[in-house]
Amino acid sequence: MGNELRKDDILDRWVIIASGRGKRPTDFIKDTGGDKGSENCFFCPGREDQTPPEICRDGTSGEWGIRVFPNKFPAVTLDLGPTGAGFMPARGVHEIIVESPVHGESLSDLDEPKMTRVLKMVRDRVEAIYQQEGSGYVLVFKNHKREAGASLSHTHSQVMSMPFIPKLVREEAEAFEAYRRENGSCLLCDQMAAEQASDRVITEDGLVLATAPYASRIPFESRITFVRHVRQLSELTEDEFRSLARALILILSRLKRKLNDPPYNMCIHASPREGDMHLHLEILPKLSLWAGLEVGGEVYINVMPPEEAAGFLASD
Amino acid sequence: MGNELRKDDILDRWVIIASGRGKRPTDFIKDTGGDKGSENCFFCPGREDQTPPEICRDGTSGEWGIRVFPNKFPAVTLDLGPTGAGFMPARGVHEIIVESPVHGESLSDLDEPKMTRVLKMVRDRVEAIYQQEGSGYVLVFKNHKREAGASLSHTHSQVMSMPFIPKLVREEAEAFEAYRRENGSCLLCDQMAAEQASDRVITEDGLVLATAPYASRIPFESRITFVRHVRQLSELTEDEFRSLARALILILSRLKRKLNDPPYNMCIHASPREGDMHLHLEILPKLSLWAGLEVGGEVYINVMPPEEAAGFLASD
Repeated sequence: MGNELRKDDILDRWVIIASGRGKRPTDFIKDTGGDKGSENCFFCPGREDQTPPEICRDGTSGEWGIRVFPNKFPAVTLDLGPTGAGFMPARGVHEIIVESPVHGESLSDLDEPKMTRVLKMVRDRVEAIYQQEGSGYVLVFKNHKREAGASLSHTHSQVMSMPFIPKLVREEAEAFEAYRRENGSCLLCDQMAAEQASDRVITEDGLVLATAPYASRIPFESRITFVRHVRQLSELTEDEFRSLARALILILSRLKRKLNDPPYNMCIHASPREGDMHLHLEILPKLSLWAGLEVGGEVYINVMPPEEAAGFLASD
Repeated sequence: MGNELRKDDILDRWVIIASGRGKRPTDFIKDTGGDKGSENCFFCPGREDQTPPEICRDGTSGEWGIRVFPNKFPAVTLDLGPTGAGFMPARGVHEIIVESPVHGESLSDLDEPKMTRVLKMVRDRVEAIYQQEGSGYVLVFKNHKREAGASLSHTHSQVMSMPFIPKLVREEAEAFEAYRRENGSCLLCDQMAAEQASDRVITEDGLVLATAPYASRIPFESRITFVRHVRQLSELTEDEFRSLARALILILSRLKRKLNDPPYNMCIHASPREGDMHLHLEILPKLSLWAGLEVGGEVYINVMPPEEAAGFLASD
């Protein structure tokens, strides 16, 4: 049987029960795996036949700079198979975007033109997947390093659709809606001037603004947003793509150089299709452990004030 | 300046900015610390003078079996100090309960009478802290092992009050309220019979029911609840305390023995004082890494179906 979607019986929270991965209880006793280097990496050039059939690439046929293909071990799938009563299949599309053919190269190592092409490829995949039936939301995220959940070390991002809106995105979208009902305007647009004048700015150029958020829950957390009210990657202009690329490179390369290349998660929070949420990206370094307070209460202790984190990331 | 409370500008989520811990950016480059053994452990007997003044203990004056004192490095405090405009001090009480004098002993090693005394001590502290002014909620949690956020290895639990209700508890309480408005009854009470008949039962004795929740977000997650509708630890009978102690020992000792003593977080979800939520405890082993999907979307992938986890934990 394939993977199953389950909604929490108390909270409005979704879990994918991935029994398809065939883990036995004793598999949890020791953390197996770990990076095996480029030797057997099937994200590397020359092993394209080991991935599911390619969806698209950036580059000529012999060489590629970016490559997109379905996840070999998808969390969600359109190929649903037999299901029993009460079984809600984990329906969706799960794609991998390998941003560089070079094993060991990081997203932070890309130059501006390449990063811009990556971001446009992400945009294209999101738009294409929304055209397929049954996509409630298409989430884009990246896990850098094993400690942040990357099962393969070769740099890659993930695009995943699901029949619902992820809890965190839905809550954000609802907050934007509530604010708009009350004020007739966009929450992030209204905050823009104050944020630009705050001591939480990491970088800005008139098109994008990167800050350490006021209530950062993680040390060196950052948020990139757009000065113009945009909801989707598909609305970005050429200049905005380039600005976003520059801001991303700046933040990721400073994390790498100044904080010894920490693991991180990155996530694009685009508006749900029906909503009007201001597009933003979150970069969440894994520099602290979440404990009972965080996991059991969703109250966060952050020992690095965002003002200090912004000052640190703002300088070269 | 002391620690600061900040509410997220989009989500109804609280963060404690603990600048008081005096971390510098470069402190994040390498994970320092690690357990130093019992040699300098100030939770061990004989070093009682190294903790803040004791609040209470279980045992005679010379020896103790359980000991409660204020956290030496509290996340929240009543001693607020000078504050600037717009600064919301992290107000509250943060106490440590050391459940055993023996360095290296685990909570799972306690026998039923001792575990019962620990749980009653927790109840007493929660009640005492609610009597103090300004406690919006008193959260009880435990971090087992460093990977689950325990900064000291000597077994201990934490009791922490805050001027708000933690997001996760508030959302749960709201779900109970909504269910009660619609059905005139308690969500967990109504589910009880179906859960008892499900293949997710770990242990039950007519007073408490321990299950692997239907939408477990973590492998081997378990929830202990009460057959009777109770909201607070203070409502438990002697028999219910003993049943809870037995269930806790059973689960924790099987995790330890059968899964090589994994790190875990435990959390008591008692009803907010004004609410009518059914009391339950959550035990969350740290056996998987949360990645972009979890951290950036609050969508969880769990590779261990709860039915299988329950079967594993239900047998000796």
